[in-house]
Amino acid sequence: MGAPLDPTAAAFLFAENRNMPMHVGALQLFEPPADAGPEYTADLVRRARATEDLAPLFLQHPHRSLTTAGQWTWRPDAQFDIEHHVRHDALPRPGRVRELLDLCGRLHGTRLALERPLWEWHLVEGLADGRMATYSKMHHSLLDGVAAMRLLQSVLSEDPDERGTPLPWARRDRPGRSDRPGRSDDTDGPHGSGHSGLAVVPAHALRSALAVAGEAAGMPTSLVRTLSRGVRNQTSAVSFYSPRTLLNRTITGSRRFAAQDWPLERLRAIGRASGTTINDVVLAMCSGALRTYLTELHALPDQTLTAMVPVSFRRAEAGTASDAGGNAVGAVMVRLGTDLGDPAARLAAVRDSMLEGKDALGSMSNAQALAMTALGLAPAVVLPLLRLQGVARPPFNLIISNVPGPDSTRWFEGARMVGMYPLSIPLHGIALNITCTSYDGRMGFGLTGCRRTVPRLQRLLGFLDDEVRALEAAVGIS
Amino acid sequence: MGAPLDPTAAAFLFAENRNMPMHVGALQLFEPPADAGPEYTADLVRRARATEDLAPLFLQHPHRSLTTAGQWTWRPDAQFDIEHHVRHDALPRPGRVRELLDLCGRLHGTRLALERPLWEWHLVEGLADGRMATYSKMHHSLLDGVAAMRLLQSVLSEDPDERGTPLPWARRDRPGRSDRPGRSDDTDGPHGSGHSGLAVVPAHALRSALAVAGEAAGMPTSLVRTLSRGVRNQTSAVSFYSPRTLLNRTITGSRRFAAQDWPLERLRAIGRASGTTINDVVLAMCSGALRTYLTELHALPDQTLTAMVPVSFRRAEAGTASDAGGNAVGAVMVRLGTDLGDPAARLAAVRDSMLEGKDALGSMSNAQALAMTALGLAPAVVLPLLRLQGVARPPFNLIISNVPGPDSTRWFEGARMVGMYPLSIPLHGIALNITCTSYDGRMGFGLTGCRRTVPRLQRLLGFLDDEVRALEAAVGIS
Repeated sequence: MGAPLDPTAAAFLFAENRNMPMHVGALQLFEPPADAGPEYTADLVRRARATEDLAPLFLQHPHRSLTTAGQWTWRPDAQFDIEHHVRHDALPRPGRVRELLDLCGRLHGTRLALERPLWEWHLVEGLADGRMATYSKMHHSLLDGVAAMRLLQSVLSEDPDERGTPLPWARRDRPGRSDRPGRSDDTDGPHGSGHSGLAVVPAHALRSALAVAGEAAGMPTSLVRTLSRGVRNQTSAVSFYSPRTLLNRTITGSRRFAAQDWPLERLRAIGRASGTTINDVVLAMCSGALRTYLTELHALPDQTLTAMVPVSFRRAEAGTASDAGGNAVGAVMVRLGTDLGDPAARLAAVRDSMLEGKDALGSMSNAQALAMTALGLAPAVVLPLLRLQGVARPPFNLIISNVPGPDSTRWFEGARMVGMYPLSIPLHGIALNITCTSYDGRMGFGLTGCRRTVPRLQRLLGFLDDEVRALEAAVGIS
Repeated sequence: MGAPLDPTAAAFLFAENRNMPMHVGALQLFEPPADAGPEYTADLVRRARATEDLAPLFLQHPHRSLTTAGQWTWRPDAQFDIEHHVRHDALPRPGRVRELLDLCGRLHGTRLALERPLWEWHLVEGLADGRMATYSKMHHSLLDGVAAMRLLQSVLSEDPDERGTPLPWARRDRPGRSDRPGRSDDTDGPHGSGHSGLAVVPAHALRSALAVAGEAAGMPTSLVRTLSRGVRNQTSAVSFYSPRTLLNRTITGSRRFAAQDWPLERLRAIGRASGTTINDVVLAMCSGALRTYLTELHALPDQTLTAMVPVSFRRAEAGTASDAGGNAVGAVMVRLGTDLGDPAARLAAVRDSMLEGKDALGSMSNAQALAMTALGLAPAVVLPLLRLQGVARPPFNLIISNVPGPDSTRWFEGARMVGMYPLSIPLHGIALNITCTSYDGRMGFGLTGCRRTVPRLQRLLGFLDDEVRALEAAVGIS
C-alpha cells in the first residue's frame, strides 16, 4: 500500500469527471537555434526520454481498491513508460498557430489515465514559420497551476548557450529549486506597480492554502459556513451576486484554447495615463472583450459580470497561508463594468472594484482570508460544497488570473522562448477561464473554455485586441 | 439503464487492463489524388467530422454502476464529441515510415477511455513522400479484428472518381453492408489455393463463435474442460506442448508496431515450386524470421515454436459457428520448424503440420471444433480460464493470422490505397501477434508486440525479407 494522498489532492481526484478534467497546462513557443539541424526536435525528445532519475511526483499514480479501504494512495508505476509521457507531435498543414491551438484544445480536453503518472509533455513541430512548441499537462492533484508554471520556468535558462538543462521531471540536485522565487519576484521594478496585486507565492504556501480546501472537502467546516454566509450576505467581503450568463452553465469535456500576447509597454502606458495598474488594464481588456462578445451573441446581461481574481497581499499576521515574506493569497471579486459602454468608465470601474476588494481583504479576519484563499485557488473543490449549502450559483462569472513570468528572455536547449500561455480548468458554472502570464516584455493571455458552452471562443482574441486600442484612445495615448 | 452487453463483449471489458488493451487497429496508406490541394487532408477531416447520422455502435459507451447491478450496459454518449474520435495528426520530421510506425505503436498502446464510445480514427499527414495514412482503432467488444477490417474495406471504392463515400461510422442505408462477403471471397481464383485455409467468415458467424467464449467466461463449461483436456493430452487435436520463449512472458502496456509488404507473386512462385500454399509460405517466412531473431538474442529453443493459426474449413454439419455457406472457423496449431536450419525443410514442416492440423480439425466433434474456434478467436478470454484449470502456459508461442483483403486497387475520396496493415492484441504469455492481409497483389504483414517484452521488433521485418530470398533460393527460383 502506497502513501496516502493529502486531502486536497484526493479532493481533485474526487471532483474530476469526464466533463471536468482536473489538469492544468501550458503552451510554450520557441525559436530553434540558428544551427538547429533537421534532427533538432527529435534529439530533444530522445534526450527528454533519456532522463534516468525522475522526481517521485512524476513516477507515481493514484490507486484505490479494497485493500486501500477505498482511499486514494500514491503508488509507484511499476511499468513506467516515459515514451507514453514524453511525446513528439507535429501539426497538420498549413501549420499555423490555429492548428497549434486546435491541438492544445484537443490534448487539454482528454483526461489523464489514473493508471499512469499524471503528466504529459508534448514537443510539437510543424509550425510553418519554423518555430516549435511544447504543451505540458499536469494533474492538479500533483501541482496547482502557479506551481506548475514555476516548475516549467525553472528549467529555462538565461544563457542561450546552456545545454543539458534538467527537464521538469528530473530529480533535482538542489532540493527546493522549483520553489525558489522566480527572478521577476525580486525585480518588480521595471513593471512598476503593475504586478503588485498578483499571485506571487511560493508553491509551498499555495499548498498549505489548498490544504484548507481539502479539509473543507471532508466536512462542512467553519470555512464553508463562512463562505456560505458571505455569498448570501452583501455585507461581507465575499458577498457578490452575479448575473447568470452563457458562461455559467453546465459544461462538457470538450475544450477550446485561444492564446495571444500584447506588448507590456502598451498596457503600462494605458496604466500610466489613467492611474491604474497593469492588472487593472488586463481586467479592463477582458471586460471590454466580454462585453463585445456577449453583445454579438445577444447575451449581454444588464448587470455587470464579476470576475474572481486571485491576488497576493502583505499580511504579517496571516497564519497558514503565509510564507516567510509575509505574503498571503486571497481572491477579489471584481465587478468588471461590462454594463458600461465607455472603455474609460470600465477601466475606472475595475480599478475601484479592485481597490475596494483588496481593502476588504486586508480587513478580513484570518479565517475569512483563508476562506477567500480557498475559494480562489480551489473553486473546483469549494463550489460543489457551496451548492450543498444551498447556494445555487457561483458568486462570480469567470476566473481571471495573472501569474507573473520571467521578465527577460529565456532559453531551452538553445531555443529562444518567444511565448508562454497557461491552460486552466473550466468548471460547471464557470465555463471560461482566462489566465495571463507576463514574459520578456509581453503579456500572454490563455483562454480555456468548454468548446460547446462558449461558442466561438477565438473571437475573444480579436475583441481583446480591439479593447487595447479602445483603451489607448480613451486615455488619449493613441 | 441501457442495453446490456452480450457476454462476449463484456468478457473483453473484464479481460482488459492497463497491460492488455483490448482494441484492434489498422494502418492504411494512401496516395492523394494528383489534383489534391494543400487543404485536401483538412477537408477530409472536416467531412469525416460532419457525419450527421452515426451507427449506434459508434455512439455508445459501456457503463456500469450500482444501478446496473455491476453489469456492463451500453449507454448512448449524451455528450458525444466527434472531434475527440476523428483526429487530424501529422508526423514529425523526417516523416519516414519509421515515424508513422512509431505513432501507430504509441496510439495502439493507449487504452480507449470507457467513458466515451470505443473508437478513434486518425488521418495522418506529414509523410515525406506525400502519402497520407489512416490509423483506425476499435475496441474488441464492438467488433473483432476480421469484422473491423471488413468494415474499413466496405467504405473503399473501386472507382477513383467516387467521392462522398460514407465513413465507417456512418449509419448504412443498406443494412448488413459490412457483413457482405468481400470481393476476394468470391474470386479466389487468381490466388489459387493460397487463401483456401484462411479465416474468411462473415462477421455474424464470428460473433456466434465468440459467444461460446463468452459463455465460457461465465463458468467452467464443457468447452473449457475440452480445451483443458486437450492441452494436457497429446492425443487430441488441441494438444501441443510449446517451448517457453521470450515471447511467452508477462507483457506491459507499451506497444511496438512494424509493417511491410511483399509481392504476392513472389510468395505464389515459392508455393508453386514447392507444392505449398501462400499461407504455408507466409508461415515459413515467419518461421525463418523468428529463428534468426531468436538466434541473434541467444534465445532460440531446441524445440520448434508453435503458432496458433485461425483457419476456415467446409463443415456442413458445424452448428453454431457456421453460416449459410457451410464455412466454419477453427484454429490449427502449426509447428513452425524453427529448430530446422534449412529453409526448405522449414517450409515442408509447416506444410505438413498445417495439413495434419486441418485433418484433425475436420475430424473433430462439433464441441471440439467449437472449442478450437473459441481458442482461436478469443484467446484473451479463454487463456485465463485455462490457467484456472491448472494449465500453466498457452499451448502455442504466438498467433499468426491471415485475413484476405481486396484483390484489386481501392480508393478513398480519390486517394489510391497503397497498403493496409492490421494491428492486433498481444496478451500475457503471447507477446507477439502477426496478422497479414493481402491487397492488390501484395501481402501486408502487421507485427504488434509488447515493446518491452519483444526487443527490437522492427528487425523481424528485415528477417522476413531475408527469408523470402532464402525460400526462393531453396526452391530454385531465385
